[in-house]
Amino acid sequence: MRVRAAVAGASGYAGGEVLRLLLAHPDVEIGALTGNSNAGQYLGALQPHLPQLADRVLEETTAQALSGHDVVFLGLPHGQSAAVADQLGPGVLIVDMAADFRLENAADWEKFYGSAHAGTWPYGLPELPGARAALEGSKRIAVPGCYPTAVSLGLFPAYAGRLAEADAVIVAASGTSGAGKAVKPHLLGSEVMGSMSPYGVGGGHRHTPEMAQNLSSVAGERVTVSFTPTLAPMPRGILATCSARAKPGVTDEAVRAAYEKAYADEPFVRLLPEGQWPTTAAVYGSNAVQVQVAYDESAHRIIAVSAIDNLTKGTAGGAVQSMNVALGLPEETGLSMTGVAP
Amino acid sequence: MRVRAAVAGASGYAGGEVLRLLLAHPDVEIGALTGNSNAGQYLGALQPHLPQLADRVLEETTAQALSGHDVVFLGLPHGQSAAVADQLGPGVLIVDMAADFRLENAADWEKFYGSAHAGTWPYGLPELPGARAALEGSKRIAVPGCYPTAVSLGLFPAYAGRLAEADAVIVAASGTSGAGKAVKPHLLGSEVMGSMSPYGVGGGHRHTPEMAQNLSSVAGERVTVSFTPTLAPMPRGILATCSARAKPGVTDEAVRAAYEKAYADEPFVRLLPEGQWPTTAAVYGSNAVQVQVAYDESAHRIIAVSAIDNLTKGTAGGAVQSMNVALGLPEETGLSMTGVAP
Amino acid sequence: MRVRAAVAGASGYAGGEVLRLLLAHPDVEIGALTGNSNAGQYLGALQPHLPQLADRVLEETTAQALSGHDVVFLGLPHGQSAAVADQLGPGVLIVDMAADFRLENAADWEKFYGSAHAGTWPYGLPELPGARAALEGSKRIAVPGCYPTAVSLGLFPAYAGRLAEADAVIVAASGTSGAGKAVKPHLLGSEVMGSMSPYGVGGGHRHTPEMAQNLSSVAGERVTVSFTPTLAPMPRGILATCSARAKPGVTDEAVRAAYEKAYADEPFVRLLPEGQWPTTAAVYGSNAVQVQVAYDESAHRIIAVSAIDNLTKGTAGGAVQSMNVALGLPEETGLSMTGVAP
Amino acid sequence: MRVRAAVAGASGYAGGEVLRLLLAHPDVEIGALTGNSNAGQYLGALQPHLPQLADRVLEETTAQALSGHDVVFLGLPHGQSAAVADQLGPGVLIVDMAADFRLENAADWEKFYGSAHAGTWPYGLPELPGARAALEGSKRIAVPGCYPTAVSLGLFPAYAGRLAEADAVIVAASGTSGAGKAVKPHLLGSEVMGSMSPYGVGGGHRHTPEMAQNLSSVAGERVTVSFTPTLAPMPRGILATCSARAKPGVTDEAVRAAYEKAYADEPFVRLLPEGQWPTTAAVYGSNAVQVQVAYDESAHRIIAVSAIDNLTKGTAGGAVQSMNVALGLPEETGLSMTGVAP
Repeated sequence: MRVRAAVAGASGYAGGEVLRLLLAHPDVEIGALTGNSNAGQYLGALQPHLPQLADRVLEETTAQALSGHDVVFLGLPHGQSAAVADQLGPGVLIVDMAADFRLENAADWEKFYGSAHAGTWPYGLPELPGARAALEGSKRIAVPGCYPTAVSLGLFPAYAGRLAEADAVIVAASGTSGAGKAVKPHLLGSEVMGSMSPYGVGGGHRHTPEMAQNLSSVAGERVTVSFTPTLAPMPRGILATCSARAKPGVTDEAVRAAYEKAYADEPFVRLLPEGQWPTTAAVYGSNAVQVQVAYDESAHRIIAVSAIDNLTKGTAGGAVQSMNVALGLPEETGLSMTGVAP
Repeated sequence: MRVRAAVAGASGYAGGEVLRLLLAHPDVEIGALTGNSNAGQYLGALQPHLPQLADRVLEETTAQALSGHDVVFLGLPHGQSAAVADQLGPGVLIVDMAADFRLENAADWEKFYGSAHAGTWPYGLPELPGARAALEGSKRIAVPGCYPTAVSLGLFPAYAGRLAEADAVIVAASGTSGAGKAVKPHLLGSEVMGSMSPYGVGGGHRHTPEMAQNLSSVAGERVTVSFTPTLAPMPRGILATCSARAKPGVTDEAVRAAYEKAYADEPFVRLLPEGQWPTTAAVYGSNAVQVQVAYDESAHRIIAVSAIDNLTKGTAGGAVQSMNVALGLPEETGLSMTGVAP
Repeated sequence: MRVRAAVAGASGYAGGEVLRLLLAHPDVEIGALTGNSNAGQYLGALQPHLPQLADRVLEETTAQALSGHDVVFLGLPHGQSAAVADQLGPGVLIVDMAADFRLENAADWEKFYGSAHAGTWPYGLPELPGARAALEGSKRIAVPGCYPTAVSLGLFPAYAGRLAEADAVIVAASGTSGAGKAVKPHLLGSEVMGSMSPYGVGGGHRHTPEMAQNLSSVAGERVTVSFTPTLAPMPRGILATCSARAKPGVTDEAVRAAYEKAYADEPFVRLLPEGQWPTTAAVYGSNAVQVQVAYDESAHRIIAVSAIDNLTKGTAGGAVQSMNVALGLPEETGLSMTGVAP
Repeated sequence: MRVRAAVAGASGYAGGEVLRLLLAHPDVEIGALTGNSNAGQYLGALQPHLPQLADRVLEETTAQALSGHDVVFLGLPHGQSAAVADQLGPGVLIVDMAADFRLENAADWEKFYGSAHAGTWPYGLPELPGARAALEGSKRIAVPGCYPTAVSLGLFPAYAGRLAEADAVIVAASGTSGAGKAVKPHLLGSEVMGSMSPYGVGGGHRHTPEMAQNLSSVAGERVTVSFTPTLAPMPRGILATCSARAKPGVTDEAVRAAYEKAYADEPFVRLLPEGQWPTTAAVYGSNAVQVQVAYDESAHRIIAVSAIDNLTKGTAGGAVQSMNVALGLPEETGLSMTGVAP
């Protein structure tokens, strides 16, 4: 199969990562690259780590530029995907890395995003129960948020196994690329190096309802999520520390068994040997997920920790993986399990 | 007053930080400096940031070397403080930065440290209800652990105000200096830069019972603590994200009021204006504590975040502050509220 | 003496560092704080590491706001200092942290800054031969650039001793705060963490003529400077590696002697013991300078390395040190030799 | 072709990087993995970023373990390669990542390494004039040092074009992985984060004669090298700033032409467009080399800057590239030009 792919938002971090992965994908040919404020510039000046594309010039993001491709990756700000998708028509596979089509509940969307709900597309997290089947053959994919990817993979087996109470508490640390390439004072290197800081504390982060949606659907009951994201002094990576009170009668063995069952056949998720804990360094630049879990008997809580690369499995790698599923390609095509460490 | 101080363990991070602070303390004269594996070496080769002491030579850590001082700071591995203190006698102020005399419960000590309980000394966290009075005039001080300092100051007002349920969930990120100067593979720069990793997950970290002790004493009931420490790619700083379910009827206003009351007169703790959250950069190298709190109505949880410098307020600054209280000096003497930022 | 000081540009990195140092200066009272785009905001939101000033509100930078002080520190963009100084009058001590009055040669100024030369003020690097005397009693001070501070202190003893040929080669690494607080894409944390990059290569950096001026004046001949600055993944610090061909007959001993002579009585410069090399960590947050030198017999070159904190000795510390000299205060007042390490 | 490869020193950074690359090499099957102090351990505990090999157990490094392979990569301490190679025999391709066979001059070897010279093998830097031909069909490869790779590629075109005087001045910054995985106090994360520091100053670094050898061979005259390496707060990457006085009559155009000529057909070296300078981030994890050059007319110097990943092109990538040449495989097989950025 030969797949021709366009990338809208090619000058951003998500777009750059999609291109890095597509360059290694044996079945994909890279077509149009678009940007907005950067239209007309060489990609080599914007993404100097992609020398093969250095001489490509960014076009304006228009339906015309993006038409004529089999797949279009959208790395646009929230709120623009629906219009682009409508113009491209139902026959093109649209892989949306924005939030527009992730949430099922319109009220949640309106509360957290402040605009009208655009709808819901098949969710690009194949490891989530039911998700893979919904992606197969689909022409629309809503790529999950980076935090929901890490948190859902860290915690859903506990809910699938009916082991955890319905109030999850999550604290996650993210590398700064998660905040994108927009220049804001608190994202300056001088500010972030040597510093940890929280944001969106108290339920305000937009990824919160997406996590609750995923965990609730697996749990079969409404799971509330207390989510505190923190900005860590590193360019990439998410370490999600997820916990919930254990249901009565839970044992170490039951917890372990639930996670082993969930991930026995997943190509990208690695439940670590007991006693070894995830590190973001180990998944740097890879589509791999490291997961570990423990039952803290004193505190009666299940503690699961997951590590991903926010740009790879958390964004562009998840997008390519989901594209593979949608197109019927082997799911691992073009994706690496190997981290760049140290 | 002229206070003559010795530092045992002067080549380590805690010892070096005590010296940095004592050099700026107007009432202290620095006496003997001791080390073990480094005895006989110039301090200038071991602590190149302390040029005023560069020509001082480390002595062996013996009672003889440490005698003849008004104050002795102990930056030794756990288990050695009791013997040194006995030899120095009851008239010398001993400020112990190891864990030996922090825990009240012998069973907790034995479970987490695997040796016989040495006893309990007045606890060097003046901000904790009752602690300041116990320190005044004392000749023995148990300096708190760095994590318990951050967590106790983050969360005790919620328990003092009877606002929080008795199961606290804490995830904290620490700079690598918290692990000390011992050379271990996972502490190499190549391993920690660009990586976040958890350790001691599931209730195993030795600071857990110390946190539970502090919070329980304030709460008037036994508080369980789920504590997950993580290693962050920065040399200094702790960011502690602490939460607990809110008791019925709790309001935003009640939470804010409890924190304002707790910290109205504390010189080193700053409850930030609403909407501003702590960063470790802002307290780098200072004895200041930044605290902020929110009530997440959806998750029914109180979320408090605190930031300290693990070596300053979390270790050596807390030690000097407590020494000031014990000696009847103004509590802020020689200590800075100003962080080194950016 | 009681000195009342105003700071123009108090929201920037240079301004923030001046305030950090003035808060520890026993003879200074902090008066007006001004900013431009940030006028009307609380300093606590802009400089959260300075809690003592958190409730101060920034005023517009006007002569009226700055009048009525004994000293005014200017942390403004290049080109604005002359007008402010004229309005404040000859009786006020103006300490200018911009470049406006550093260069003696008008043609150099015009070539590198593209505007008319404003003049030359006494140069705020007391360690440079002749500079201290020119500062005493002066009402105008041109604070050196951060790179010229590091490079001049690294290399001038070799020229003072007539040991080095007149073509200096310098490669320096700077922390990102040297680029200021303006938000530019290449200064994002995501871009700088994990990366080294050069800029202004080939003679284009504006600090080049300032270095040449300093070294030439000491050498008694025109010294050419090849200067390559690089951006390092750290918030603070400059490490300058400086070299020049040795004049015929130079020996190890002669090189060492020249440096020992130059720095025998300097309070802030420490020539390290032979074999120990500078690190920026050792001078983090301090006004200290670490210097070391070697003679490479194979390459016939003298190699000197210096380390400073670009914001402290390289900007605000040099400013306060020079203010002390100008006002007749002990030169070390309010300044620390102690680095914040690790 | 199916190539069976063994890796000696598989628990170190060089060995880990070879494995990361071989996992992506379509013609290689990974055979024995050996270590010494770590023999008997699972690779998953030592190299958690290589999940595909997690269940492999390290063997002792013996000729028996390494025999039966087509290629053996040696990531051993200096001085051990000759004995291993002798035991494996002349029919096996030995790719030595240690220094043992890099230097042609026995006196240089003895001066810098303090032992008897083992000999000289074909040099694994195919871009160096003459090197590629010497590698073709060879059964022995001496992989260059990481600094000599960066420096030689940065500067040899200037010497090949007879544009530069014979005294090169080089200052290079390296990520900490260049120092290997041995635990030494100055390599602790707490020490290196936020700090730049030089080492081996004044001609003492062992890579100095290797650079001089490479540049001299191209220049046709003896080139002296002044080399100052510095340790930078990042895990990977080398940025080499290389300069030399320009020969009389040199012009911008001649310099540019020499570099364009040298790299017109090199698959891994990218001479950047004028005005764009290398960054180590852009080559993170890739085998690419970024080079840029300028002529500083004021200082009469040619300044060339190169960026590589010290573990990839600087060690394991260079090793795999040279293996490809030796085996007659397409030179780029299994190697990526794409950096992992940001």
